[in-house]
Amino acid sequence: MISGRVIGRYWATKRIDTLPQGALLHVRLDDGGHLVALDPLGCGEGEHVLITQGSVAAGYFQTVKAPVDALIIGSLDEQPPSK
Amino acid sequence: MISGRVIGRYWATKRIDTLPQGALLHVRLDDGGHLVALDPLGCGEGEHVLITQGSVAAGYFQTVKAPVDALIIGSLDEQPPSK
Amino acid sequence: MISGRVIGRYWATKRIDTLPQGALLHVRLDDGGHLVALDPLGCGEGEHVLITQGSVAAGYFQTVKAPVDALIIGSLDEQPPSK
Amino acid sequence: MISGRVIGRYWATKRIDTLPQGALLHVRLDDGGHLVALDPLGCGEGEHVLITQGSVAAGYFQTVKAPVDALIIGSLDEQPPSK
Amino acid sequence: MISGRVIGRYWATKRIDTLPQGALLHVRLDDGGHLVALDPLGCGEGEHVLITQGSVAAGYFQTVKAPVDALIIGSLDEQPPSK
Repeated sequence: MISGRVIGRYWATKRIDTLPQGALLHVRLDDGGHLVALDPLGCGEGEHVLITQGSVAAGYFQTVKAPVDALIIGSLDEQPPSK
Repeated sequence: MISGRVIGRYWATKRIDTLPQGALLHVRLDDGGHLVALDPLGCGEGEHVLITQGSVAAGYFQTVKAPVDALIIGSLDEQPPSK
Repeated sequence: MISGRVIGRYWATKRIDTLPQGALLHVRLDDGGHLVALDPLGCGEGEHVLITQGSVAAGYFQTVKAPVDALIIGSLDEQPPSK
Repeated sequence: MISGRVIGRYWATKRIDTLPQGALLHVRLDDGGHLVALDPLGCGEGEHVLITQGSVAAGYFQTVKAPVDALIIGSLDEQPPSK
Repeated sequence: MISGRVIGRYWATKRIDTLPQGALLHVRLDDGGHLVALDPLGCGEGEHVLITQGSVAAGYFQTVKAPVDALIIGSLDEQPPSK
């Protein structure tokens, strides 16, 4: 997986029917570059997120045909959990 | 997903039979580099588009065998929707 | 998909059995870098070709097990078709 | 596969339900760049590890839906085995 | 596919059970960068090899679960075959 910070959100009124509902977040990757990732977790701007890519991302959706190749699967804790 | 601007169109008269009909758009990616993406939405030059890649792109087509690894799945709104 | 120019051909006498027959073309990608792509279309040196990658490329072959992750799916027309 | 050194660990309290238990290790790749990989082997900081990516990584988990695209599959021996 | 030269071999005594037997070769790619590829062909150091990546590589193995995303599928002939 790769990590990055949410820096904004996109809207796409004109879209293919099989694109699932959910926020299309604009993420700046920690190693450079950007992605647009589907967010099922309700993340906000500035949040540090974990992203999975490829067919693995599409597998999250019930519809096999979801055309999603980047999915936010977690929000990274800023500090390790206290024991 | 990745985003980019449509900068042109390609034609391929000599092609394999299983390549679906549809425009082969030349896209300049926002992070640099280029892709050729199948466009089911009728996007035009200059449009800011969202692209999904890999087997997820091929899954859009009814034929399982569509040899398409880059698909335009949305046109990004230039402004967020007004509320 | 990505585009590039055919710059040569490779032979591999020592190969795994499931590699399909067909030319292994050496392609210089338009964005830089190189690939070796299986060519079912009979393309020649200097030809501008369109390449699909990943499991989508393997899906072209009848054998599910074809170990091919780069396939030439079209030859790009040097000019748009006249109307 | 690609290789790298474990340099830390991430926690994600807020995560999607289908993300399997297991350490999310922060790996600096030998060629540069970083990944976050699921670790089923109990690797520690500084360990030199081998990582597989994509749907192949997800295939390790019993649940078909595991949203994991980077998995540590081995720890590289610092020296070849003595004969 | 991509090409490269074998520059060494890795051993991984600590590994997941589903990693198939076979040499884990260290390959320097012709375009730069490195990979670790499973070698079913018995290639040696200095050999110029062809590598397939992703789920296509895993498909070579009888076990569907083989966590292999890079496979040597051929050794490139230094010269074209004489006719």
